[in-house]
Amino acid sequence: MPEPLPADSVGIVTSQLITIDRPLALACGEVLASHQLEVECYGELNARGDNALLICHALSGHHHAAGYHQGDSRPGWWDHYIGPGKPIDTNRFYVVCPTNIGSCFGSTGPLSTNPATGRPWAASFPPLRARDWVNSQRLLMDALQINRWAAVVGGSLGGMQAMRWSLEYPELLDHCVVIASAMKLSAQNIAFNEIARRAIKSDPDFCDGDYANSGSSPQQGLALARMIGHVTYLSDELMGQKFGRELRIGDFTTGTAAPVQFEIESYLNHQGDKFSGAFDANAYLLITKMLDYFDLAREYDNDPAKAFALAQCQYQVISFSSDWRFAPQRSREIVNALVAAGRDVCYCEIDSDQGHDAFLLPNRRYQQALGGYLARAASALEARI
Amino acid sequence: MPEPLPADSVGIVTSQLITIDRPLALACGEVLASHQLEVECYGELNARGDNALLICHALSGHHHAAGYHQGDSRPGWWDHYIGPGKPIDTNRFYVVCPTNIGSCFGSTGPLSTNPATGRPWAASFPPLRARDWVNSQRLLMDALQINRWAAVVGGSLGGMQAMRWSLEYPELLDHCVVIASAMKLSAQNIAFNEIARRAIKSDPDFCDGDYANSGSSPQQGLALARMIGHVTYLSDELMGQKFGRELRIGDFTTGTAAPVQFEIESYLNHQGDKFSGAFDANAYLLITKMLDYFDLAREYDNDPAKAFALAQCQYQVISFSSDWRFAPQRSREIVNALVAAGRDVCYCEIDSDQGHDAFLLPNRRYQQALGGYLARAASALEARI
Repeated sequence: MPEPLPADSVGIVTSQLITIDRPLALACGEVLASHQLEVECYGELNARGDNALLICHALSGHHHAAGYHQGDSRPGWWDHYIGPGKPIDTNRFYVVCPTNIGSCFGSTGPLSTNPATGRPWAASFPPLRARDWVNSQRLLMDALQINRWAAVVGGSLGGMQAMRWSLEYPELLDHCVVIASAMKLSAQNIAFNEIARRAIKSDPDFCDGDYANSGSSPQQGLALARMIGHVTYLSDELMGQKFGRELRIGDFTTGTAAPVQFEIESYLNHQGDKFSGAFDANAYLLITKMLDYFDLAREYDNDPAKAFALAQCQYQVISFSSDWRFAPQRSREIVNALVAAGRDVCYCEIDSDQGHDAFLLPNRRYQQALGGYLARAASALEARI
Repeated sequence: MPEPLPADSVGIVTSQLITIDRPLALACGEVLASHQLEVECYGELNARGDNALLICHALSGHHHAAGYHQGDSRPGWWDHYIGPGKPIDTNRFYVVCPTNIGSCFGSTGPLSTNPATGRPWAASFPPLRARDWVNSQRLLMDALQINRWAAVVGGSLGGMQAMRWSLEYPELLDHCVVIASAMKLSAQNIAFNEIARRAIKSDPDFCDGDYANSGSSPQQGLALARMIGHVTYLSDELMGQKFGRELRIGDFTTGTAAPVQFEIESYLNHQGDKFSGAFDANAYLLITKMLDYFDLAREYDNDPAKAFALAQCQYQVISFSSDWRFAPQRSREIVNALVAAGRDVCYCEIDSDQGHDAFLLPNRRYQQALGGYLARAASALEARI
């Protein structure tokens, strides 16, 4: 924890575990009679309960989006963008970030106990769709006495949730901010997810998902899954700049068979190992399936303009030039559908060499674009009688 | 085997195993006292021994480039391009295609017996560089009484060998054809190879490379490795056209948790499984390392123009618009270096949606470009007194 804390930090934060004792009917047909959400909130809810801003996390995200946990040296995953005076301004918004169900950071998920069996859900946790996260977040609203979201904001899978929010509960949000996202995954996106899943499932320590009971954990498979994902989060350009062909071990002297290791190999293996110690394999399988299954317009005759015609909020769509996981073209498809549906939309393509990960990283233009949009939203909100 | 065989096929072919009883000094310092190459040859060597054309295979290639093996329904891997009247015209060229050492299709490699131990080399096979393949092919020339290559031709890793040929033995080739290749791998290229290697090595059946002695085989790891490679061989565009989001199993009806499988998942798993039954894991590790280690200009002060200044042959460089493994820009770098070195070079960027695999697939423009270039080479050769 830096000493003193930065002035634009939300400071020391603690999460709260909120029990939602109302049934949550999932898209797969199962019903969770009750579920729990681990949540962090920053800022203050106004008297009208309408200055709340929902942060939707992506595949590996969680509730700890900003500020510092006691004793931690690193802040939450979106601290560059959330805090007093930051683009997501906690002086103006009541910022709410839950870990969503199905993940592995305290909220109900594969690591939780299935009340029907008294044992962990593990691989038997019900398959989820983005709409299930939205419906869970809808119940969270009531639990926190929020009447309306000033904005629902998310990157990647978070952007998909934000779009789904605008279709499922159009009357409950003013703004929808969709960052580095897409209306559905491409075959290539699905392919990378499937390789990651096979890496996990073919690890003998996976034990058909029952690894916790077997006292094992598919660490190798999960590390491989993350390594595959990680390459798709970075741009070719950035990897070239950061690592190029630099060597960590050995050299290419003729006459030696000594091993050679490139810096990129070392980095990537480290990223994989770090992740496999911090994430749950069943959750990874479940959430990559959510990504694959997401298709904004499936229930709207595959016509995204028809889908967005139901929305009432205003949209901001942001993409990054070097993102090849969800390239700018995918954001332009969203924008085109919004325009066709007559929606109010502001689109920014941010020049960045950081690839998909750019949505998490400092970037002045991005900060200006997001901050400017949300400042206008806050001003309009504060001007309401 | 089609009945009758196509008129432009080289017909029924058999390979020959050629023993090269001369020492081959490898870049790593080890010496193979003798080695064997499994080779196919098509066409006839002329009296001067100078109409030979060397085919350099890529990562997973082998000696069976054209024609049909007795009883096979599918021809060799480059049959679209090799045959009487085809771009690599067996009426004019004596086409030679060896499986290179270190691979697993009959030539000396990890599956061969190490004479020093009497047991398979397995993981102890010496690490190789592209130049070792070139030096082995140099010895093959003598064994086949070839005095000069009319052309050395290869795609991907094969293109790297072809370039290396033009630097190591500049006086022994007239033409060098470099297809869908690069002067060195990028950090992203290396990253994908490293994930593939880790997939193999972390498969418990790999047994540190000693799987043959353990009666096992890292099938899962090798399948994963191939799946990763395969995605990088196809373009996003092509995968979208061929598979899109089509489903093989299940549907997205609300209220069901029944599994859903996309066509792309099924296809990719099938490709992985097919490959893992046909390739050797130690060879895969070894050859991906060769790819990573290749750096055309490393011994030339990292100046490719300085490297190519030593060459004497003419070059054709071909790239494919949708290839993202070795994108057209990588070929343009080769061309720029050749131009800077004052070499004669012809460059073609072929419009294709097939990604890196385009170099193996039918494409009229590509056939015309390669065929036209080699026809001119053949005419010049035939006009020699």
